[in-house]
Amino acid sequence: MPNDKRKIGIVAPASRIDERTAERVQAVAQESFGGRVDLIFHPQCFLSWGHFAGEDAARADAFVEVANDARFDALWWARGGYGANRIAEAVLPRLTDSARNKLYLGYSDAGFLLAGLYKAGFRVAHGPVARDIEREGGADAIERTLRFLIGTPAAGDLEPSVNAGKPLAAFNLTILSHLIGTPFEPDLRGHILLIEDVSEPMYAVDRAMFHITSSPNIRKVGGLKLGRISDVPPNDPDFAQTEEEVVRHWCESSGIPYLGRADIGHDVDNKIVPFGR
Amino acid sequence: MPNDKRKIGIVAPASRIDERTAERVQAVAQESFGGRVDLIFHPQCFLSWGHFAGEDAARADAFVEVANDARFDALWWARGGYGANRIAEAVLPRLTDSARNKLYLGYSDAGFLLAGLYKAGFRVAHGPVARDIEREGGADAIERTLRFLIGTPAAGDLEPSVNAGKPLAAFNLTILSHLIGTPFEPDLRGHILLIEDVSEPMYAVDRAMFHITSSPNIRKVGGLKLGRISDVPPNDPDFAQTEEEVVRHWCESSGIPYLGRADIGHDVDNKIVPFGR
Repeated sequence: MPNDKRKIGIVAPASRIDERTAERVQAVAQESFGGRVDLIFHPQCFLSWGHFAGEDAARADAFVEVANDARFDALWWARGGYGANRIAEAVLPRLTDSARNKLYLGYSDAGFLLAGLYKAGFRVAHGPVARDIEREGGADAIERTLRFLIGTPAAGDLEPSVNAGKPLAAFNLTILSHLIGTPFEPDLRGHILLIEDVSEPMYAVDRAMFHITSSPNIRKVGGLKLGRISDVPPNDPDFAQTEEEVVRHWCESSGIPYLGRADIGHDVDNKIVPFGR
Repeated sequence: MPNDKRKIGIVAPASRIDERTAERVQAVAQESFGGRVDLIFHPQCFLSWGHFAGEDAARADAFVEVANDARFDALWWARGGYGANRIAEAVLPRLTDSARNKLYLGYSDAGFLLAGLYKAGFRVAHGPVARDIEREGGADAIERTLRFLIGTPAAGDLEPSVNAGKPLAAFNLTILSHLIGTPFEPDLRGHILLIEDVSEPMYAVDRAMFHITSSPNIRKVGGLKLGRISDVPPNDPDFAQTEEEVVRHWCESSGIPYLGRADIGHDVDNKIVPFGR
């Protein structure tokens, strides 16, 4: 009998996770998908070097190992955190043709690599990471993501913009700001761009919106949708504008169509956004 | 008798100051420079609109009014804070030839406008702002800046890199990161680039260093000098690298010569860096 399980490799290009987190995700996968999925947490996920899940070389090697391994159908982020940018320049040139035959999925800090991968023609998607199991109700996010990764998404798993008939891209706003003007910034002409952010004071959201909407590349997007901006620390003095007022301001002053809210964010409702069409 | 006083106009393109701050600066100017300097605080400095020293239009109008007024020898920032980026695109096209015959001086958030002004060929410098009077020992910073603005700098007022025989530029690291890839980013080829920052956790310093050193423009600088990175909030987990290790890491991986420390920062010792040669 052929093995028709989808094999998913999990790596941590930024911050580490605990073994207990991996066990919880394995339990959800087993309970909800039984023999249809095989999750392999790379041991690198549990390494620790200061802020990171192991030194830069260890994180880069694990990513390349899983990406280039033809047995894996998908590479899934263990979590975001911080640090994928530190390995981007080392990882991308090492990817082989095997790496093109799989799906890459993560969000938040993952955007650093998703950007470069998308630019290079890989299949990438923005969506929940393994560590979202630790959120209240996190099993929903894990099940949604696994349905997508094994090719059987349910109605409502994908962000509704997939029906707009335009190419999509989704980013954490702060990460996108740090990609502007780098070799990893993809051409987003004509795309619907979805953004979200977390734990940034409103002045920093405003500043990042200034930055991305000042970029000639971003000014060519087909429109912008605002996901959730959560856990906003207090602004001193009060910023006097809400997140939607801020985003509308920069869309209007830069000529980018504002298309309303998007169903993405740092939470369990974070829907999946496949990049491109 | 001709009036040989240097006339300095003070505006607040970002956050506001109190009247009391202006009075303290006037007192220092009177005591140390007597009849040689005339400081005019534009009333806009004291306006308030949420985070900002008045609405965007009020801040832009005040800046343009002082910049285009031939009677002023210099435009000096009341303070940084946040918000010069919000008026940059509106201000720059309105500047006339009169605006070219003066010096522009500020730091921190001021970098948003200093960048665009320098790119457009204006004379700009990175140095203390009026509100630095509120720091302990702040009168030193005010006197240093006024000596420079009236054309009689003392030994030690200028950052020592002025002797390197290369063009200079100085920026707050986070502000420079938000300028990358925008129309305000000046060509820094061959420049010695001085950076400083304040109140950013080490992971954010690392991320901004990734960003600027990934930019093809910044990779063409002649070298980078690290000013002070002050009031760094704790990193959780500990970042495992010091500020100098972080900066050396990104200089090495991007091929930018690291030239050591610079005498700039968010403090009263902040020396003056005239842009260019």
